[in-house]
Amino acid sequence: MNAIRIALLGAGTVASGVVKVLDRNREEIRRRAGRGLEIVAVAARNHAKARAALGEALPLTTDFAALATRDDVDIVVELMGGIEPARSLVLAAIAAGKHVVTANKALLALHGNEIFAAAQARGVMVAFEAAVAGGIPIIKAVREGLAANRIEWVAGIINGTTNFILSEMRDKGLDFATVLAQAQRLGYAEADPTFDIEGVDAAHKITLLGSIAFGVPVQFERTHVEGIAQLEGADIRYAELLGYRIKLLGIARRTATGIELRVHPTLIPASRLLANVEGAMNAVVVLGDAVGATLFYGKGAGSEPTASSVIADLVDVTRLHTADPGHRVPHLAFQPGELADTPILPMSQVRTAYYLRVRVRDEAGVLAEITSILAERGVSIDAMLQRPSGENGAHTDVILLTHDTIEGRMDEALACIQALDSVLEPIVRLRKEELR
Amino acid sequence: MNAIRIALLGAGTVASGVVKVLDRNREEIRRRAGRGLEIVAVAARNHAKARAALGEALPLTTDFAALATRDDVDIVVELMGGIEPARSLVLAAIAAGKHVVTANKALLALHGNEIFAAAQARGVMVAFEAAVAGGIPIIKAVREGLAANRIEWVAGIINGTTNFILSEMRDKGLDFATVLAQAQRLGYAEADPTFDIEGVDAAHKITLLGSIAFGVPVQFERTHVEGIAQLEGADIRYAELLGYRIKLLGIARRTATGIELRVHPTLIPASRLLANVEGAMNAVVVLGDAVGATLFYGKGAGSEPTASSVIADLVDVTRLHTADPGHRVPHLAFQPGELADTPILPMSQVRTAYYLRVRVRDEAGVLAEITSILAERGVSIDAMLQRPSGENGAHTDVILLTHDTIEGRMDEALACIQALDSVLEPIVRLRKEELR
Repeated sequence: MNAIRIALLGAGTVASGVVKVLDRNREEIRRRAGRGLEIVAVAARNHAKARAALGEALPLTTDFAALATRDDVDIVVELMGGIEPARSLVLAAIAAGKHVVTANKALLALHGNEIFAAAQARGVMVAFEAAVAGGIPIIKAVREGLAANRIEWVAGIINGTTNFILSEMRDKGLDFATVLAQAQRLGYAEADPTFDIEGVDAAHKITLLGSIAFGVPVQFERTHVEGIAQLEGADIRYAELLGYRIKLLGIARRTATGIELRVHPTLIPASRLLANVEGAMNAVVVLGDAVGATLFYGKGAGSEPTASSVIADLVDVTRLHTADPGHRVPHLAFQPGELADTPILPMSQVRTAYYLRVRVRDEAGVLAEITSILAERGVSIDAMLQRPSGENGAHTDVILLTHDTIEGRMDEALACIQALDSVLEPIVRLRKEELR
Repeated sequence: MNAIRIALLGAGTVASGVVKVLDRNREEIRRRAGRGLEIVAVAARNHAKARAALGEALPLTTDFAALATRDDVDIVVELMGGIEPARSLVLAAIAAGKHVVTANKALLALHGNEIFAAAQARGVMVAFEAAVAGGIPIIKAVREGLAANRIEWVAGIINGTTNFILSEMRDKGLDFATVLAQAQRLGYAEADPTFDIEGVDAAHKITLLGSIAFGVPVQFERTHVEGIAQLEGADIRYAELLGYRIKLLGIARRTATGIELRVHPTLIPASRLLANVEGAMNAVVVLGDAVGATLFYGKGAGSEPTASSVIADLVDVTRLHTADPGHRVPHLAFQPGELADTPILPMSQVRTAYYLRVRVRDEAGVLAEITSILAERGVSIDAMLQRPSGENGAHTDVILLTHDTIEGRMDEALACIQALDSVLEPIVRLRKEELR
C-alpha cells in the first residue's frame, strides 16, 4: 500500500522529535500501521533553524497555507503552538479534507468546539493525544480504554515545569524564585514561564480531559486557574508535617449539580502514588465507577515523548482515514449529537477541603475566635498545628486542615477571620483533596 | 441505529460485572458507542447460580455452542476461563463470523496463534483487553498508544493475589503460609491458588504483553515461570535493608540476541513507583525508545474492573464491526504478515543482577572463597551484608547483590559455592532489576 503523506506545520522541538522517531522506527511503525508514514514537506519560517533541527532530507516551505491544503497531503500535523495562525491553518486543512493531528492544547481548549464541528462536518479526524500529558496515552485511555465507566473525576499533574519546581522546593527547601531560575537554566522552564507557573497550560489540558471524561463541550473560560507563583516554602513544610504534599493539580469532577474544572496548588496525602510523582514527570488519576482508580504516568513534555503521541495519532488516523466516519472514535469521546449541557460550577460552589495558615498575634483567645467563625459556617476542623513564627517567635502560625465545605462559605469565613485584629497578615488558603 | 447484539458465554464473577455495568451505564455507553449494547442471552451450566449472579432479566441457555453461533448475535463474549470448551467455542464463533471478546489469558497464551489466525482468515476481531491487568487499558496502551516506539521492555505486577501476599508479608512480617490463608479468607486468593502463587497466571499475561510489545507469536511454552511459594520472610527483610522490595514481576525484554520472557520474584529499588504498588493492585511499566518510561496502574482483577475492559472492547468492536478489516488494529499490534521470528532466550542466556543469601559456618575465609568463585566467572559484587543467624547466631547469613551477569554463568558459580564445606544450606537466589 502507498505510504500515507504527512505535512508538518512547524519545525521546532516536537517536529524534530517526530522526524527523528519516524525515521529511526520506520520499519517498526510500518509493521504496525500496515503502510509507511512519509513526511512530504515541512513549513517553517526560519529555514536555517529548521535545517538545524530536522536535517537536510526534507523539503521546506515558508508557505504554511499552501502546504496545509496541498493535494498530495493526507494528514496535516500542526506543531506551531499558539492560536493564530494555527487556528486558521487547521480550519483550512479541514476544509480541504485533510485529517489533522495537533499537539496544541491552547488552540483546542479555546477553539476546540469550532474545530471539532468543522472536522465533523467535513468527515475528517482531529487527533490530539500529544496535547495532554505529552507521551502518556491518556486521551486514548479515557476516551476508549475506560469507555465502560461513568467517570467520577480526573486529577492530574499535567504540567512538568511546575511539578519540577514544587519537587525542588520541597526536596531542597528552596524558595520559588530560586528554583524557577534553576529550572530555566536546566531547560525545564521557558524564558517566559507565565503559562506554566500561572496554571494556564494545566488549565488548557484539564479543560480537554474534562470534556472527554464527561461529554461536555470545551469550556476553557469556565475553568478556574491558579498557579504556584505565590506558594511559600513554609506551606510546603507545614503540609509535609501534616502528612501531605503540595502538587499543582488539574481537577475535573462530576457532582450532582455540575462539573468542577479547576487548576490550583493542592495538598494530597503523601502516601498516594500521585504525591510521589517527582520532577518533570506527569501523571493522571482517573476514577471510574466500574474500574475504580487508575493512574497513568510518564513524561509530559519533551521532543520525543510528545512525538510518541503525535505518531500514535498518525498511526490511528492512517488506519481509519478511508473508513466511514461512523467507525471512528468521536473527538470528545461521546458522539457529536450526544454532548451534554451539564453546567461548569463557579468556584464558589465547589466543594473541597482546605489548608489555612493564619499568622496571628501570640495571645489568648485567638484560636477560639477563629474556630468559632468557622464553626458558625459549618466548617469543621480536621487537624490543627501551631508554630512560632517571625523573629524571636514574635507571632504564631496557626495551621488548620478542614473537612469538605463549599468554597463560598469558606470565602465568607475567611473574610471574617481576616478582619480580626489579632490576624496580622493575609491568610494563606490552599485546597486539599484526599483523592479517594 | 440498532443495538449491537451480544452473547455471554459464562455467568460467573466477570459476567455479572458486565451485566451490571452495561445496565447501570447504559446511556453513557450508548452516547459513546453511537448505538446500544444489548445482551441477547447468556450461556451457563447452572441456571440457579446464574440467576443469582445476573438477575432475572436475561434469557439463559445451557447450549453454549448454539449461542456462540446464533444468527442474531454479533459479538460473543467468552468468560468461562480454562482451555476447553472455551477454545472450541471461540473457534466456532469465529467460524460463524462472530467477533469475540475474551478475558481468557490462559486460552490466548496457549492457543492465541491458532485463534488469531482463524479470526484473521474469517475477517473478525478477537479483543482481549480484560485478559491482562484487569481494568487497566494496557493492551490498548501498548498496541496503539505507544505505537511510535521501539519498546525496550515491559515489566509488570500483573497478579493481584501474589502482590497482596508479598505486601502483607513485608508489612506485617508474616510468613507465606499465614498470609496465603488470610488471602483465601478475604477472597484475594482462590481455594486452589496454584496458578497465582506459582506464577502461571502472570506468565500467561506477560506472554501476551511480550507478543504485542515485540511483534512475535504467542509462546507461553518458552516463558520462564517461577512463583513466590518458596519465598522466605528473611529475604524480604534483607532486601529492605538493602533498599529493595520484592515483587513478583512479569518481564519481557528485547536484547541483541533475542527476547526475554520471564516471571519470578524480583528485587526492585524501593524508590520506584512500581515498588510502591501495594495490595491487590496491578501496574505495568513500559519503556519505549521515544516516550521513555510510562506506568499504568489500577485494579488487576475483580468483577467490575474486569468488566470495564470487556465493555471497552465491546465498544471498540461495535465501532469497527462493519469496517474493512484493514481499518482495525491488528491482534498482536503488528500486521499479521509482519510478525518477527525473534527467538525467546532460554533462562541460561538471560542477563540480570542477583540477590544471593548463603548460610555459612561462621569461620574465617568463607567470604573470600565465595567472592573468588564469583570473581573467576566475572560476576562482580555490588553490595554485601552479613548477619548472624540460627540459634545463638550459630551461623551467618551472607547476602550479596551482584551486578548484571549471564544466568548460565551464575548457575555455574552457585554450583561451586553450594559445594563448599562451609555452606550449610541451599543458597537462596533471587533476581534483581533496576528498571532503568
